[in-house]
Amino acid sequence: MKRIAILGSTGSIGRSALAVVDAHADRLQVVGLAAGENAELLAEQIERYRPRIGAMATGDAVDRLRRTGAGVDIGGTGRDGLVAVASHPDVDLVLCASSGTDGLEAVLAAIEHGKTIALANKEVLVMAGGIVTEAAARRGVTILPVDSEHNAIHQCLHGRIAAEIRRLILTASGGPFRGRRASDLTGVTAAEALQHPTWRMGRKITIDSATLMNKGLEVIEAHWLFGVRADQIEVVIHPQSVVHSMVELTDSSVIAQLGVTDMRLPIQYAFSYPERWPAPLPSLDLVEAGRLEFQKPDTDAFPCLRLAYRALEAERSAPVVLNAANEIAVAAFLEGRIGFNAIPSVIADTMHAHRPGHVATIAEVRNVDRWAREHARQAAHGLKSETRS
Amino acid sequence: MKRIAILGSTGSIGRSALAVVDAHADRLQVVGLAAGENAELLAEQIERYRPRIGAMATGDAVDRLRRTGAGVDIGGTGRDGLVAVASHPDVDLVLCASSGTDGLEAVLAAIEHGKTIALANKEVLVMAGGIVTEAAARRGVTILPVDSEHNAIHQCLHGRIAAEIRRLILTASGGPFRGRRASDLTGVTAAEALQHPTWRMGRKITIDSATLMNKGLEVIEAHWLFGVRADQIEVVIHPQSVVHSMVELTDSSVIAQLGVTDMRLPIQYAFSYPERWPAPLPSLDLVEAGRLEFQKPDTDAFPCLRLAYRALEAERSAPVVLNAANEIAVAAFLEGRIGFNAIPSVIADTMHAHRPGHVATIAEVRNVDRWAREHARQAAHGLKSETRS
Repeated sequence: MKRIAILGSTGSIGRSALAVVDAHADRLQVVGLAAGENAELLAEQIERYRPRIGAMATGDAVDRLRRTGAGVDIGGTGRDGLVAVASHPDVDLVLCASSGTDGLEAVLAAIEHGKTIALANKEVLVMAGGIVTEAAARRGVTILPVDSEHNAIHQCLHGRIAAEIRRLILTASGGPFRGRRASDLTGVTAAEALQHPTWRMGRKITIDSATLMNKGLEVIEAHWLFGVRADQIEVVIHPQSVVHSMVELTDSSVIAQLGVTDMRLPIQYAFSYPERWPAPLPSLDLVEAGRLEFQKPDTDAFPCLRLAYRALEAERSAPVVLNAANEIAVAAFLEGRIGFNAIPSVIADTMHAHRPGHVATIAEVRNVDRWAREHARQAAHGLKSETRS
Repeated sequence: MKRIAILGSTGSIGRSALAVVDAHADRLQVVGLAAGENAELLAEQIERYRPRIGAMATGDAVDRLRRTGAGVDIGGTGRDGLVAVASHPDVDLVLCASSGTDGLEAVLAAIEHGKTIALANKEVLVMAGGIVTEAAARRGVTILPVDSEHNAIHQCLHGRIAAEIRRLILTASGGPFRGRRASDLTGVTAAEALQHPTWRMGRKITIDSATLMNKGLEVIEAHWLFGVRADQIEVVIHPQSVVHSMVELTDSSVIAQLGVTDMRLPIQYAFSYPERWPAPLPSLDLVEAGRLEFQKPDTDAFPCLRLAYRALEAERSAPVVLNAANEIAVAAFLEGRIGFNAIPSVIADTMHAHRPGHVATIAEVRNVDRWAREHARQAAHGLKSETRS
């Protein structure tokens, strides 16, 4: 029996994870559940899975949870709550699917306590990849990626070492604006950008998909997860999203992972690893898929991808700045305050103002993050003024 | 230093194997070389690689070899020569790339002597899959497939066990007549059938590609190599030959191997296994490949594929009959004695006349093989007469 904690249990990944638990109730036991604000759904999950510990983002959310009559020990609120759930002594594996940067301390705490990490949160590695992977190596902890691309690469590698890798090939759907030029993207609205062709996801990540920043963040993650250099990571546009990613080995052989687009697959893979369990998922029908296409990404129209490579090639603080500035810029775009093409401008401006350096602690990471957010806010405001003038 | 013997060193696979040796002279040493009739080329190879033992198909060929002044011990001629080379005490790995059924005894002898087998010859497993795989299991010998499809599956599995396999998906280019109906194939000539779209191969295997019998034989091989049932092996037409084959695992995840169409890749894989060495081969350019297509095979137009499945589902002697009758029918087609659509008719007729049974020894296999060839000859002759009358 593998005993798991889920950080972000009421979100999309969290709910898929509980569906995996339902399908393998004889092999998986839910020990901890942490959610944000959705007290009603967490109460239902507690009723059903009977975890030993729970947590929510705020005291107000915990109050609402208590009023439902849900019986569970509350480990705390905010980051402290996540840390308490992730480091509970009964937990074997922590699925980190909490949004944003809040899961950072929890993942590090889980690693220090020797828990296996199933990672569905991009920010953790983008912001603190060096700190997290060094801690994991020191404690002998396995980090299993749940993101479909990195999960694909983990499946392709299947124990093969970094020295056997010539290249990682991350596939990208290309988002709703695939094929458009920069000049065609000036006036696009948030509503248009939120129409993702193949995956249903949250608003922030869907915009990241449209700008290709999502793929840029994945390039940075891949560097930390698989120990390869930036110039060994290639992005290829694959509109059908059937090939989830590939690995080219040193003899030129390419191993690819393909599958239906269902997050239960990578989640179950992480839960079952190093075993592989049957899943109640349909077979991929390649004949029905018809044709698989591959195109070069257009980094003139989508400069966010280029910015991410630049951040990865710089020192460790640069990806923190990239990520923070992107969050601010995307929020400003979603609120209609800046245009689509201003998103990379805000990020580039913030990166330009930053002198990259080493970041050795989470406190340093959070300092850089704070600075970058503030700078990006001003940059976004400045662009807004420019647009108006 | 891995010490290798090559059965069929002057053929296409044999020459590619020696190119792999050239690229890894620090890791591979040629200990034995066996060829058919090409004494001149074998003499050059002996001069260059200085093997300890050699063999040729006939005494006449050996005489021609001697006249070149090539200095090597000759282990014998015909099957005895192959056995002597394959079981030489200094050999670690035997590449079986001899054509037809002659390599059967040599592969079994190599297994009995504990040599690793790199198998590039279809007939060995089609005719004696049970005998060969049982011997290999008993002696703890690894059989590494060199055929690009099975090599792809071996790479995809990478140590995963049969219980984790839901399905094997063998890709087929579809040959020169892909998309044609049975009625369109009545009058096609040998010259048309010999125009293979993606791979350069010998005449017999190119016709097998056009009839899809090649894929049928591969289905039978896959059964023996990977321990899966006939109903777990699917064939999909993939005209671009970029995806060499795939494995669907029990959780619905599909692992595929892709690559350039160069036989040095699977040969080096087999030579280096379980290591993987860098190869001087270009990277696969998926953007240039453009699009990958997948189609259902048309077993009405290409009934040979259906016959192969039927043979696999019957007892062990049935694939022997299938293979023997196919060889006779293909030879008759190449000589212009029967039409393209008569190839499956000859095979079906011969299979129909045979009562399948267990075959426990190579002698029994050869008896069934002889009977089937004789029957197929008569069947082909009968069809010819019918055509004339």
